[in-house]
Amino acid sequence: MPAISHTINEQMESFKLHAQLEKDSIFITKLDLSQVRLNKDSRFPWLILIPELANLRELHEIPDILQSEVYREVHLCSKLLEELMEADKMNIAALGNLVPQLHIHIIARKHDDIAWPQPVWTKGAAIPYTRDEQDRLVNQLANRLDQ
Amino acid sequence: MPAISHTINEQMESFKLHAQLEKDSIFITKLDLSQVRLNKDSRFPWLILIPELANLRELHEIPDILQSEVYREVHLCSKLLEELMEADKMNIAALGNLVPQLHIHIIARKHDDIAWPQPVWTKGAAIPYTRDEQDRLVNQLANRLDQ
Repeated sequence: MPAISHTINEQMESFKLHAQLEKDSIFITKLDLSQVRLNKDSRFPWLILIPELANLRELHEIPDILQSEVYREVHLCSKLLEELMEADKMNIAALGNLVPQLHIHIIARKHDDIAWPQPVWTKGAAIPYTRDEQDRLVNQLANRLDQ
Repeated sequence: MPAISHTINEQMESFKLHAQLEKDSIFITKLDLSQVRLNKDSRFPWLILIPELANLRELHEIPDILQSEVYREVHLCSKLLEELMEADKMNIAALGNLVPQLHIHIIARKHDDIAWPQPVWTKGAAIPYTRDEQDRLVNQLANRLDQ
């Protein structure tokens, strides 16, 4: 991580996860800048990466000095999920139409998943993981991301 | 742009735009690395940014040395479109389920657009711009991006 200014430091210290993201996903690990979470939808292997900076809505609002760190973390998660899930395609998106706090979707797609080839949004209700599935996946991802 | 290796130079030289992207969008300008195009759908102000490198499918496949340039260009387009369209929210995504060549969607969303708050994909057929609208928008965007 680069040396950061007082202003950015304050933005980090006043970060608080949006309640909807907290409800819909499970904490996996904290990277240098971003929190990585698993979306509670067993239909698609789906990470959500949230840079821990208050008042961020758009990708282009990320402070210049932190841009390379954010994208390093996005690429790290994308590459790992692609490998673990043997994905046919990764889908990466920052939308935020419903939850304004900047969060980046990292979704492993398969040619035989229920939404293929369409995007995963608006495909009906999420199907939660069983407790065992969820614990195993969170542990596996945390172990790999913390290496 | 940073100094680039022989391999990356070859990747740049052998780049060829995918026929579907060529058909569905109009050339606006070429930035240092990426081609910027306007999606032929007047329902949403929608840019498509294509880094001119052959054989790229995933964001995490962008050569390290070019990552900051790609994201600089994404942010430039996003900020400009947000401002020109007085967008309520920007949607940025790299999906590629239908067209495998890496391309990044940069879409200005409004609270009163026909898909809000859902993503724009799978919202029915595109409505083309009139020739005048299209020319005006392409010129306006090219002028601002070429500054």
